[in-house]
Amino acid sequence: MSVQTDLKINFSRLRDDIEELSHIGRDADRGIYRMAFSDADMQARQWLLHQMKQAGMEARLDGAANVFGRVNHREGAPAVMTGSHLDTVPAGGHLDGALGVLVGLECLRRVQEEKINTRYPMELVAFSDEEGRFGGMLGSQAICGEITPHMIHTASDLKGITLMDAMREHNMDGMQILQARRNPQSVHAFLELHIEQGPVLDRMGMEAGIVEFITGLFKWSVRLIGAADHAGTTPMDMRRDSLGGLAEFAGEFPRILEEHGSKDSKATIGRVELFPGSANTVPGQVEFSLDVRDTDPAVLDDLAEAFRRTLSALARRRQLMFEFDILSEITPVPCAPDIIETIARAAEDLHIKAHRMPSGAAHDAQMMAKLAPTGMIFVPSKDGRSHSPAEWSHWEDIEKGANLALHTLLRLAEAEQT
Amino acid sequence: MSVQTDLKINFSRLRDDIEELSHIGRDADRGIYRMAFSDADMQARQWLLHQMKQAGMEARLDGAANVFGRVNHREGAPAVMTGSHLDTVPAGGHLDGALGVLVGLECLRRVQEEKINTRYPMELVAFSDEEGRFGGMLGSQAICGEITPHMIHTASDLKGITLMDAMREHNMDGMQILQARRNPQSVHAFLELHIEQGPVLDRMGMEAGIVEFITGLFKWSVRLIGAADHAGTTPMDMRRDSLGGLAEFAGEFPRILEEHGSKDSKATIGRVELFPGSANTVPGQVEFSLDVRDTDPAVLDDLAEAFRRTLSALARRRQLMFEFDILSEITPVPCAPDIIETIARAAEDLHIKAHRMPSGAAHDAQMMAKLAPTGMIFVPSKDGRSHSPAEWSHWEDIEKGANLALHTLLRLAEAEQT
Repeated sequence: MSVQTDLKINFSRLRDDIEELSHIGRDADRGIYRMAFSDADMQARQWLLHQMKQAGMEARLDGAANVFGRVNHREGAPAVMTGSHLDTVPAGGHLDGALGVLVGLECLRRVQEEKINTRYPMELVAFSDEEGRFGGMLGSQAICGEITPHMIHTASDLKGITLMDAMREHNMDGMQILQARRNPQSVHAFLELHIEQGPVLDRMGMEAGIVEFITGLFKWSVRLIGAADHAGTTPMDMRRDSLGGLAEFAGEFPRILEEHGSKDSKATIGRVELFPGSANTVPGQVEFSLDVRDTDPAVLDDLAEAFRRTLSALARRRQLMFEFDILSEITPVPCAPDIIETIARAAEDLHIKAHRMPSGAAHDAQMMAKLAPTGMIFVPSKDGRSHSPAEWSHWEDIEKGANLALHTLLRLAEAEQT
Repeated sequence: MSVQTDLKINFSRLRDDIEELSHIGRDADRGIYRMAFSDADMQARQWLLHQMKQAGMEARLDGAANVFGRVNHREGAPAVMTGSHLDTVPAGGHLDGALGVLVGLECLRRVQEEKINTRYPMELVAFSDEEGRFGGMLGSQAICGEITPHMIHTASDLKGITLMDAMREHNMDGMQILQARRNPQSVHAFLELHIEQGPVLDRMGMEAGIVEFITGLFKWSVRLIGAADHAGTTPMDMRRDSLGGLAEFAGEFPRILEEHGSKDSKATIGRVELFPGSANTVPGQVEFSLDVRDTDPAVLDDLAEAFRRTLSALARRRQLMFEFDILSEITPVPCAPDIIETIARAAEDLHIKAHRMPSGAAHDAQMMAKLAPTGMIFVPSKDGRSHSPAEWSHWEDIEKGANLALHTLLRLAEAEQT
């Protein structure tokens, strides 16, 4: 049933697209500034619409500024959808999000050029605000019907600019985001190609990743409160030193992860603030972030309990007060087993060394999994660098990933043998 | 030879002075703002000059704005000097520094009133800028001849106001600070009474402290540099997490202090900065302060070596880069054994429960020890609080401390029996 594996994407065209798009929003060597609903972001969307039309696809923007293009459209038939996002973090790289959109564009162009018939129509999407200027995964949430009028009216960026105002700047009405919801019947499957943003494939010498789970997480803000005393006059045994509590807690990470975690578990303290924060004062209070991730909801629950108990016990022993706020909780999302196997078989046929792995980062795919069976392909990231102008993937890996996406999509869409 | 122990300071007069002075620079409940060379600080100096003249003392300001008053003056005879400072930290308390000056004032007034003859003249001093608006211990350093023209010309406060300009505001010429140097022959002994600023006396239920050593210290700024990676996508065993290094280091404090320290050793990390400092990024770099204190220079050397080795070893094992800058090094200063014994005997005669202890904080006394035999009396600090409007000492303890200072000074000055 499958298309011959010698059908390939047009790599030089894909490379040209990557290079052309990378100039939109670029600020010299400081990286790419294509934050959601910025001028550069909207310019990238217009550029994509233009590319789609040039290739003869039907192309449109929805109420959330998601860009859609389609081939082999038949009214009422559910589509095999692929894509990612065009927006970037400030000072971002040229591949995060963009690669998945441009590979999707290239795949649909090849289907169009080769006049390949598919049982299911094929659709490309570039989601809005994945990176979170206004909260993150705005476009995919809108498609899944997860956005409320309240969210639209209260969302604002770090500078206090509201989502409504940012969209109005581009002659869009924020309330139209509600109209972006898609009927689940209209999507047969969703595939996202993305750079790994981690070092695993690069270090293993693998050519592609097949995502099995998109990691869930909990993020806490933890406070340990003791007493701010003079560093010179307060004997060590009369101190209630909050940093001592933090140090002991961080020292317990290996034990907690070994006892309660899985091989994929990760725990990070990325932000620490000491009060009063002067060299000659025992720090009376520390506030820090705790970010814990795993692919299994039961493991996450177990880890949350273990972290809480450890903090509570050491705080009591050290006469510290312990408080924490839950900043976010995201449930792990499994990819669809059928799609995982489809990617794996395509990789085998194309002789691409692919590794099954979790995604530790959040992606639009985890939202789209609410709507339709979903899969993800990872392209290796050089040294795992991302969200930085140093973000890079080897061109050979990009080419292999793109061909893997093409043949996965053709199989999901049940293309006729050419 | 000694004066009868029923000679007492006039406590209600001392209390009135403390309360009156505490209004100069007070900002409602936020504390006292009498930073060096501020209007409030200069007003306090004028107030003190006025009190001295009222009591019939010779009174003057020197080139560093140190205030001096004296009784029983005889040309060429070295003086027994006592005092402390009038300046405060921003939002400071009413006793830090001020108590030592006002107790000294009261002691000299009693000598004057009772017409007590002393072999050595007696002198009161209120030092300039002990708290460090322009570096700290400016007045006592000036008296000891430790100030250079370069220091005068380069000193500035956190807002960038120079010492020269701050003094010019009050019609003083900064270069006159050099003229404040005193001939060591002119000082027979120096005694400073100060609040403890720590919790030891309060917790032990003692009524006074007799300082044996003023602690020395070294202060480092330490950097551990690893790699800033994505908290979701970087497996635990591929991280070079700088916070893990800090946590391990802080966890080693008890061992290092037990192995290399004395019972008085103290080590504090009071300031921590993580880079980039976001919850979902492994912190690639941490910069933190290390403040280590002891009364024995050999112990301090040993501790410095132990801290350095520990940091170096854990950084190597964790693949972190380790750097440190020495921010300051202060040699411990012993108090004069004769003065320690004089205070101890006076306390015994007055039935004051006194405890021999180190001073963990820096004081003008440690500078004055370069010039003359020096001693210090501590008054218990409620809960060890200081540098805060919560600073407090019980009135009974203040009265006992003042009488202890009076009788110590009379003995040091070799007062005639009344």
